Amino acid sequence: MLTSQLFRTFARYFKNIAMLHFDSDYMAGAHPEVLRRLVETNLEHTVGYGADSYCEQARQQIREVCAAPDAFVQFLVGGTQTNATVIDALLRRHEGVLAADTGHINVHESGAIEHSGHKVLVLPQHQGKVFASDVDSYISTFYKDDTYEHMVAPGMLYITQPTELGTLYSLSELESLSAVCHKHNIPLYLDGARLAYALAAPNADFTLPDIARLCDVFYIGGTKCGALFGEAVVAPNPERLPHFFPLVKQHGALLAKGRLLGVQFGALFTDNLYVRIAQHAVQLALQLRAAFDAAGYRCAMESTTNQQFFILPNDVIDRLFHYATFEYWGARGETESTVRFVTSWATKEDDIRELVSVI
Amino acid sequence: MLTSQLFRTFARYFKNIAMLHFDSDYMAGAHPEVLRRLVETNLEHTVGYGADSYCEQARQQIREVCAAPDAFVQFLVGGTQTNATVIDALLRRHEGVLAADTGHINVHESGAIEHSGHKVLVLPQHQGKVFASDVDSYISTFYKDDTYEHMVAPGMLYITQPTELGTLYSLSELESLSAVCHKHNIPLYLDGARLAYALAAPNADFTLPDIARLCDVFYIGGTKCGALFGEAVVAPNPERLPHFFPLVKQHGALLAKGRLLGVQFGALFTDNLYVRIAQHAVQLALQLRAAFDAAGYRCAMESTTNQQFFILPNDVIDRLFHYATFEYWGARGETESTVRFVTSWATKEDDIRELVSVI
Amino acid sequence: MLTSQLFRTFARYFKNIAMLHFDSDYMAGAHPEVLRRLVETNLEHTVGYGADSYCEQARQQIREVCAAPDAFVQFLVGGTQTNATVIDALLRRHEGVLAADTGHINVHESGAIEHSGHKVLVLPQHQGKVFASDVDSYISTFYKDDTYEHMVAPGMLYITQPTELGTLYSLSELESLSAVCHKHNIPLYLDGARLAYALAAPNADFTLPDIARLCDVFYIGGTKCGALFGEAVVAPNPERLPHFFPLVKQHGALLAKGRLLGVQFGALFTDNLYVRIAQHAVQLALQLRAAFDAAGYRCAMESTTNQQFFILPNDVIDRLFHYATFEYWGARGETESTVRFVTSWATKEDDIRELVSVI
Amino acid sequence: MLTSQLFRTFARYFKNIAMLHFDSDYMAGAHPEVLRRLVETNLEHTVGYGADSYCEQARQQIREVCAAPDAFVQFLVGGTQTNATVIDALLRRHEGVLAADTGHINVHESGAIEHSGHKVLVLPQHQGKVFASDVDSYISTFYKDDTYEHMVAPGMLYITQPTELGTLYSLSELESLSAVCHKHNIPLYLDGARLAYALAAPNADFTLPDIARLCDVFYIGGTKCGALFGEAVVAPNPERLPHFFPLVKQHGALLAKGRLLGVQFGALFTDNLYVRIAQHAVQLALQLRAAFDAAGYRCAMESTTNQQFFILPNDVIDRLFHYATFEYWGARGETESTVRFVTSWATKEDDIRELVSVI
Repeated sequence: MLTSQLFRTFARYFKNIAMLHFDSDYMAGAHPEVLRRLVETNLEHTVGYGADSYCEQARQQIREVCAAPDAFVQFLVGGTQTNATVIDALLRRHEGVLAADTGHINVHESGAIEHSGHKVLVLPQHQGKVFASDVDSYISTFYKDDTYEHMVAPGMLYITQPTELGTLYSLSELESLSAVCHKHNIPLYLDGARLAYALAAPNADFTLPDIARLCDVFYIGGTKCGALFGEAVVAPNPERLPHFFPLVKQHGALLAKGRLLGVQFGALFTDNLYVRIAQHAVQLALQLRAAFDAAGYRCAMESTTNQQFFILPNDVIDRLFHYATFEYWGARGETESTVRFVTSWATKEDDIRELVSVI
Repeated sequence: MLTSQLFRTFARYFKNIAMLHFDSDYMAGAHPEVLRRLVETNLEHTVGYGADSYCEQARQQIREVCAAPDAFVQFLVGGTQTNATVIDALLRRHEGVLAADTGHINVHESGAIEHSGHKVLVLPQHQGKVFASDVDSYISTFYKDDTYEHMVAPGMLYITQPTELGTLYSLSELESLSAVCHKHNIPLYLDGARLAYALAAPNADFTLPDIARLCDVFYIGGTKCGALFGEAVVAPNPERLPHFFPLVKQHGALLAKGRLLGVQFGALFTDNLYVRIAQHAVQLALQLRAAFDAAGYRCAMESTTNQQFFILPNDVIDRLFHYATFEYWGARGETESTVRFVTSWATKEDDIRELVSVI
Repeated sequence: MLTSQLFRTFARYFKNIAMLHFDSDYMAGAHPEVLRRLVETNLEHTVGYGADSYCEQARQQIREVCAAPDAFVQFLVGGTQTNATVIDALLRRHEGVLAADTGHINVHESGAIEHSGHKVLVLPQHQGKVFASDVDSYISTFYKDDTYEHMVAPGMLYITQPTELGTLYSLSELESLSAVCHKHNIPLYLDGARLAYALAAPNADFTLPDIARLCDVFYIGGTKCGALFGEAVVAPNPERLPHFFPLVKQHGALLAKGRLLGVQFGALFTDNLYVRIAQHAVQLALQLRAAFDAAGYRCAMESTTNQQFFILPNDVIDRLFHYATFEYWGARGETESTVRFVTSWATKEDDIRELVSVI
Repeated sequence: MLTSQLFRTFARYFKNIAMLHFDSDYMAGAHPEVLRRLVETNLEHTVGYGADSYCEQARQQIREVCAAPDAFVQFLVGGTQTNATVIDALLRRHEGVLAADTGHINVHESGAIEHSGHKVLVLPQHQGKVFASDVDSYISTFYKDDTYEHMVAPGMLYITQPTELGTLYSLSELESLSAVCHKHNIPLYLDGARLAYALAAPNADFTLPDIARLCDVFYIGGTKCGALFGEAVVAPNPERLPHFFPLVKQHGALLAKGRLLGVQFGALFTDNLYVRIAQHAVQLALQLRAAFDAAGYRCAMESTTNQQFFILPNDVIDRLFHYATFEYWGARGETESTVRFVTSWATKEDDIRELVSVI
């Protein structure tokens, strides 16, 4: 049987050949409708740095769809820079950010949070999620310790929706997290890199207005949800992010041609494009899940979004790598491994059909 | 006469009306040829983070045009993040970066260099340029001071080509700067945010291979020179930037859909598009300069690139703001002020003609 | 029964009354011999910042006692600043420091490591110790991950000797850790805040020359081992810590009257005072342990140094707080808790006798 | 004539021989009265980190002598760490600190301010002092700039009293600086590393209560004014420095045996010792100045404190280096140089007499 290393080499070898792509949701460019708007506006001259009317209009669309009429909205380019800038803005210097040990900021941002001087305070994850009771207990225990002033104070909570493992917080879970944060007077920040896929999940019992009501700051991901790039930071109460603009610049996260972000988010929030294209992706992901299930394979996570994790025999994995790119996630004993398949707005029904035919 | 504040308000009021745009070179989108390539490749699936074949091909094109076959090339999104990341990579912790007091990193990056823990060590500027003799003297004097270990050591030199004031270093000036840096064993880093306009200047006596030969690291600006966004960091000797990739990620400067940068730089370095479109802009800028000159107004800088600085009577400025957007740069006595007009690949000959007609 | 909060209030109330002190090993001033040397030299004039002859002589004494004739030795004031400065010096920007989750840098330094931009990469602790096999596995697994360049690279290993829990690495354990670090080409750094008490332990099978041979950098703690304050950083190979002096200054860790550190370490390393006074402390700690053992109480840690951890019924704890100060460490079920008693060079035999009489 | 380099080598060669010491005010240990108190209290056991009764008493003494009954007082070890910690506490992330270009934080702290992520915004110095009009103009101009959000905002003012050049702000100058800071709503921070010598100057027309009334935060220097080490940070309104304690720890500036600072400051503020010993030093410094004046040499600065700067012929400097240590400050044309002589509480009248005899 091939090792994971060989799998990957193999996948790379084939990557220039026609293949089915399930490795991630940022493999293609922008949704055609988004690209069309970029092309249409390309030769216009506007002021830079997001002070243009496209950004203003997109900000207004986001305020409306979030039912947050006073919200501060700032567009940034990518997820890591957004997390680093928002967290730097929200924390005082002696504070750290609570996050699941699987949280993107704790694992996959090359220490961007620490680069700004902040510690990630790790909570246990449960299918990628943080429990409100763990947050409560962490903070309560912290302040009972005589030496707490020698320790990094829990200054905010970071969560992802959907999580890195494809799972969702329910509305009541979000309400509990919001309540525990407010009980302890720390802000709740939601990383919505794939928020469209959460909103599009069949079991989603929350809305953007719910998120705006429950979170102090969150971001609506564009990069993985139909845009070329771009993330929209939203603070329903604008006083939560004072002096954010120079901080964005200081973090190197300010796009000169800011309107590119406004144009894209404007398109995504016209006629509900943002959620519609995610529904397509989620539907295909669930078809894939049903197919693996029918073939007798187990899911590794209770995911109802566009990331699906399966436990497959190594020889099956080996065989599937002939047809598709997907992510090897780790060994599970001697003969099985976990793998991840990701769909996006760009996945075609034919891709699923073709993959299912070779499972 | 209107104050500068009023000018600006005025300009903003009119910004939605048809106007001539000379405020900066990032007001429009991408050069149509660049955009065409983005559209053509939009629906392809590639791996992320710059490991795709478009990036690899663009890197190769850049190596060729720079006559630097071994060069390390990394694409980033914007100028401030590029400066912050490169400078962070080149400096040791006890070192700072020498720069002209007008240097972009010293003035207009909201403290991004200091955010990474480094001090900007200021040298006098001469029409925006740093003199090799000042660098030599700074470093020599520094190490003669008994208390130098209590001070921030000069660890690299930062220059801009063209400078923030539109002026150019000649080849011999670049050679002197390179020599003094190597004499003192510190790297020379060139910020080429507008490098196309430098290469296109009538008096440019240097080439990209010269720059690659003389600089330890430099970047080829895309944002202001025809791309939607993007800067290409080049280290002719790749050992100058070890472990640069995770540092890019740590700085939040890694684009998920990295190929967008490869596609754009690929287009810019096909058929010399990069310099051709800058030649157009410089030609128009010099026409504007000739027109102001003919009208009896002085230049504030010896600029031969796409940024032109004029000293105009305040009432003339007042009047021109009815027709065009441009930058108020500062008062010059009671009755005159300095202003900046910038052209780009997107400026039309008609724009110049129209503006000239109302000078 | 009193809660821990009440215990502490109670203890504080009594702290001005004659009590037995076992809360920590930095409650008293300096060992009289150390103080005598400070008094004798007080009115001398010397150069500052450690360039004086007392520092030079103490550096030489340390080189000799460590059998490290070329060692770089730098004196700093306190432990947290020493850890922050050394770790900042040893790590490259994309790297983090491996440490036990109970490691002082991970828990009790208020984020000083992160303040310098570095992540603490947590390893499981076993009675406060790190296992070489865990280090090996962490690093091997790390580089097998396809996304490792998006993660913080393990750049060094931090250990404490004795650990925060009073336990000791044996010589063979140190050798294994050193071997695994060298196998993966990362430095091994040993925090010796209480190193005297490790050297004085009855089961210590290692010497200072062993530590100098096995560690890339370590520090010999003074604050908790007989000095008023002060820690001596030792790099047996001086090339491990280039440009360390300006970094010490940058970290605010440079003492103006540097000779105070030289005088103290000179005294501590004259006639083996450093270990002799620790032997006294360890002997008393083990008497205490024997007494609790005889009374039928369990140890919480296999400590053979000056920190002893006992599991006591809450009513016993309650009663002992009438006589002595010590640290409440945490509940252990409903009726028992863990407590810490610490001895030092300043603990008197009578203190132990008196405490034992009331157990 | 010897070059400065030779001077210094020469001075070093002689430093072990009996010489007169005028190089700085931190060459000797502690004032005997301060040391006496350290010795007397040496064997007491107290809690650590400044929670002891000696610290509490010293804090109370400082509140009284400053007429600031609610003041927050925190003891730190050295000046650079104090500046770095206070400035880090006062600035928001997008802000920098205004300071004279000769300010200690701008020149002699190895980039400690930038290490915490903050830029030093440089103002012109006038005999080491900052003019209120320059502060006013800097801030007013700053906010008039259209691009100010791309620049580092002036977030506080740093001054030294006396300055690095020995000069003093008068009461009315301090009042103007305080007024301009409050006008622009930024805190005024005074670095009092040598504050005792300012208070002891014959022309001092301000008191500690004046400083407490006019500054938002200041520190009372101990290291150069009679203590072994130690600086007392004072915030008359304690709300100016919330969460300062963990920040002190994070900066590695928290002394374990905190009472050493309390004991020393307690001694310094008993019977006005702090100012009395400085008066002695200033008196001797002025005798020296009179002697140089009588010999026909010019002062380089209008200093009335313990640092005196003279312009001397190089051959005179050469000759004086046979008898005394002092600081070579820089060439002044071909044949003259500036030198600095510093007195302290430890300077003896005989030292002055002896030096004067050889001028």
